[in-house]
Parts: sequence; C-alpha cells; structure tokens
Amino acid sequence: MLKSYSKLLKIVEQEISKNPFTGNPQNLYDPLNYIIGLGGKRIRPVLALMGCKLFSDNYEKAIPCAMAVEVFHNFSLIHDDILDKAPIRRRQATVHEKWDTDIAILSGDLMLVKAYEMLAKSDQNYFLELFAIFNKTAAEVCEGQQMDMNFETETTVKESDYLEMIRLKTSVLLGCSLQLGAIIGNATKEEAIKLYNFGVNMGLGFQLMDDYLDAFGTPELVGKQPGGDILANKKTIMVIKAMQSEKESLESLFNDKEINESLKIEKVKLLFIKTGSDNYLKELAEKFFDLASQNLEDISVDKSKKSQLYELLVYLRNRSF
Amino acid sequence: MLKSYSKLLKIVEQEISKNPFTGNPQNLYDPLNYIIGLGGKRIRPVLALMGCKLFSDNYEKAIPCAMAVEVFHNFSLIHDDILDKAPIRRRQATVHEKWDTDIAILSGDLMLVKAYEMLAKSDQNYFLELFAIFNKTAAEVCEGQQMDMNFETETTVKESDYLEMIRLKTSVLLGCSLQLGAIIGNATKEEAIKLYNFGVNMGLGFQLMDDYLDAFGTPELVGKQPGGDILANKKTIMVIKAMQSEKESLESLFNDKEINESLKIEKVKLLFIKTGSDNYLKELAEKFFDLASQNLEDISVDKSKKSQLYELLVYLRNRSF
Repeated sequence: MLKSYSKLLKIVEQEISKNPFTGNPQNLYDPLNYIIGLGGKRIRPVLALMGCKLFSDNYEKAIPCAMAVEVFHNFSLIHDDILDKAPIRRRQATVHEKWDTDIAILSGDLMLVKAYEMLAKSDQNYFLELFAIFNKTAAEVCEGQQMDMNFETETTVKESDYLEMIRLKTSVLLGCSLQLGAIIGNATKEEAIKLYNFGVNMGLGFQLMDDYLDAFGTPELVGKQPGGDILANKKTIMVIKAMQSEKESLESLFNDKEINESLKIEKVKLLFIKTGSDNYLKELAEKFFDLASQNLEDISVDKSKKSQLYELLVYLRNRSF
Repeated sequence: MLKSYSKLLKIVEQEISKNPFTGNPQNLYDPLNYIIGLGGKRIRPVLALMGCKLFSDNYEKAIPCAMAVEVFHNFSLIHDDILDKAPIRRRQATVHEKWDTDIAILSGDLMLVKAYEMLAKSDQNYFLELFAIFNKTAAEVCEGQQMDMNFETETTVKESDYLEMIRLKTSVLLGCSLQLGAIIGNATKEEAIKLYNFGVNMGLGFQLMDDYLDAFGTPELVGKQPGGDILANKKTIMVIKAMQSEKESLESLFNDKEINESLKIEKVKLLFIKTGSDNYLKELAEKFFDLASQNLEDISVDKSKKSQLYELLVYLRNRSF
C-alpha cells in the first residue's frame, strides 16, 4: 500500500477504535461496532483527510467528516446486504445473518443517525455547507441503490443509465468525502467542487474496472472467485455493449438454467471479447481516470501538495492493467 | 378539535402539500409522498409550531423544524411497519405491502435523510443546538423500538423498563418537537428543556391511556377494535401489574391458543379489574399529566401565551376519563 495512504489509514483506524458506539439495548448497538470492525480499505475517510490536507496543514480538523462518511458507508452496507440477501461480508456473517433482519434494519437506521452525529462534531462555521453536501450525497446513494435494484427486473438497460447508477451508488460518496475535507480545510467552493469531480470520476473509473475484473481478473487480484456478475446476469457495460450485436447468443446463455457455471462464464467472456466489449469498457474507464487527472490538475494549489492524490489515482488505475 | 390546533394543523397540511418529495427513481420517491399523504393528527409538527409560538410571535420560523419531525415520524412508520409486519396503516396498505420490503427499507432511509434536509433549512444560528437535540432523539426512538421488539420474547418485563420503552419510542419525539420550536423561538436553554419535559410527560400520560383504551375503550373512541394488545399478549403496565398476583391465570390465558378471541379479551380484562391494574394504570397516567401541567406552569412566560398548550393537555387528558 502507498505510504501516504497507510499513515492516514492508521489515524482513521485509531479514531474508530477510540470511539466505539455505546448505548442500550446492547443488541441494537453491537451490530454497529461489528460492521465497522470488519475493516476494509477505509478509502472514504482517508479521502476526507486527504481533501483537507490539500488545502490546510491541520488535516485533523477533517476527522469528524472522515468518521461521518465511514459510518454512513457502513450504514449502507448493513441495509444493502439485506436487499442483496448477502450472507457474507469480508469473510464474516452479515448483520442480518448474525442477528436478524429486524435488528439489521433498526441498527442501520441508528448508524445513519450516528453518521449525522459525527458530522455535527465538525467546526460550526462550515455546518451549512457540510450538511448540504452530505444530505445531497446521502439521498443520491439511496437513489443509486434503488436504480440497481430496478435494473434486476429490466430486460434492457441503457449505458447512460448504468453509468448514472454507479455514479450515484458508489462514486458520489467518494467525491463527497473529498469535498467535505476540502471545505473544512477552508478551500473555496469552486476548488472543493473540482475535488469532488476528481473523486466522482476516479470512482467511476474504479467501478468500471471492478466490473471488468469481476469477469477477467484472477482470484488473487480481485480477492474473490471471478464470474459472479456473469452468473447473476448483471447488466454491466460489457453486457449492454455485447447486447448490441450478440443479443440472441447472450440472452440464451443468460436464460440457460441447466448450463455448467464455469462453462457459462467462459462462453459469456468469449462473447465480450468477440464484440470488443472488454476493450470498450477499459477505454471508458480510462476516460474517467483521465478526467479525474484533469480535475486534479485544475485545482489551484501547489503541485507538491497534490502528489498524494496523484499517487492514489495512479495506484487505483494500475491495479489491473 | 381545538380551534388553536386546527389553525396550526392547516399550516402544516399546506406546507406538506406545497412541498412534495421529487426525484428519481420514481418508485423510491413515491412511498414518501404516499405515507405522508395518509394524514394523521400531525401532532409533532403542530407541537413544534406551538413551542415556537410560546416564545416568539413569528412561529413560521419553526416550519423547517415542524417538517423535520413529521418527516422523521413518517420514516419511522415505514420501517416500524416492516418490523411489525403490519399490512394496514390508516386504513391503507403499508409501504412494504403496497410496494415491497426492499423498497420500504430504502425509501425509509431516504425519508430519514430528507428529515435532516428539512432541519438544515432552519435558521443557521441555531444549527448546533437543533441538530444535537434532533440526533439524540432520533437515536432514542431507535432504542425504544428495539426495546419494544426485545420485550416480545422476554417473559417478564419490569414496570420501569416498560416506561422507559414508551418514553423512548414515542414520548421523546413529542418533547423534541416542542423543544426545537422553543429553540428557534429564541427561548433560553432552560425554558426549552422545561417544555421538552412537558412534552415527554404529556406523551407518557397519553401513551399509558392508549394502553388503557386498547383494552377498555369503545371502537368509537379508539378508532379500532379494542383488545388488540391483549390478543398480541403485549406486556403493558396492566399486564405487568396483574402478573404480580394473578401470574398463573394470566399466563394460562396468554398461552391458550384455542380460546375464542372475545372470550380471551373479556377474561383478561376481568383479571385487570380484579387486580386493580386498570386503576393503577390510570393513576400512573394521571401522575404524568400532572407532571406535564407542572412543567408548563414552571415556564417563565406570560400565562396567556401558555393557554394553547394547556388546552391541548386538557384535551388529551380528557379524551378518555
């Protein structure tokens, strides 16, 4: 991992372990500590600190924002795992599996409230701006999740709709994390928006490559068995693209309930390659990474200050090519 | 209905219909307009306006707070109806019945975010105080709901725990509504807390009488068939009290799965009367109404200004005696 990242990650981890959630009844509060204790890359809180650092020497001011976005992200994991009927998260039981769905709904609600509680610990002078950004993003994340759910039952999904879905579901929270940090670091509104766009575009590039790797990655690289999206008939950009010329073959594979799983994965991947959908997706991801790079360049601060974020962008961009 | 109440209710209703929730996807936003459109007494937003009016002539300043508490209340209805597996709310299908549970979870989440969005429209000078009160209350409402769920599987519940549960689940939001209004009306912290306590005690009295009426009320008075709590073996104060001397008879009625429903209701009610639990509950409710009355008296504003809240207290207190 990047050195600059590790340093900030350590601060985030310390902050999390220093401030466990406490309250009664116990079975309402335990899931909050459980889910946030499962770990992860903590990219959102690290981005909040980096966003602040870009404009201010005192990045510790951004800790409440960093915690707010991480707690919000964990709230969304609890509820999304219910919707996705997911039994496992980070090799452990999900909250609704370990407790039950009722507790998962209610402890998720509590965790969303706690995210706001964290945010309200920020410097009061920035309250109005921070809340406006956070509220907008929180609503958008719900919208993205609902779009994703709606796509499951739709036969055709447009490329623009898919991009909008991943923008809302995953990218805006990355942008928001950076923007909150920038605001608390006393950036101007305009500079903070540029940083937001950097985060959103980086997120889009990353999410698209995630879709690519789910099909073409190795288990070592992606940390799970590839092909999950194909088996779930998920309408990724590659599927949307391949549908344009190989609709019949693709649909017959999707509708074939008898087919051997690895055979299905291989056949769908061959269709992606035949239609150039794999390269199409990678080029699209590249475009978003390029946009992110440009967004960062456009920010009016000393180049040396930007190196952390450049490094992170390059790191995320190269994990797979 | 009280004249002063009707006037403020009209303002609340206008505000709700003037500001429908808009956004995409449609099936995420529709449930928000649906649930808030089902009506109700709107007591929370009316209390927010009354709380402000007590200290300020310009009660319109409290409209964002009024909307925030009403939207929050409706969020909690969506999620509670999932937990309670309730098919009907105000004679209409609940959100999870009309759409599905996934949409109900997600649109509830969105509605909680929207409650914060409303609150953030308040005068900035009061932000810190308003958010602190609102966050604390929001967490407490979740705690109360979890306690209520936990009681379902507990064989014995203590009176103090039951009172704490109804305080958290229903009363604190009434107190919070008044307190937010008072704060925005420029009341001192101390006066706002007295008003909060007035709301909490009035809420406790009201909720206890609700339990009484669920057993002893007429369908005309309670707007539903009485006896629901008894059929659900709910551990109200009357059950907790009657258990002290009639444990065996009460438990055998609770465990009798063959018994005719109206017979069960009648037999349990007879046990309540025999053990004096009905009067015990009414006296307890009276105590809380008395406390509320005292809280209001203690507030340092002109007596004429308090008349609206006195009238409301008397109205709620007398609906049943």
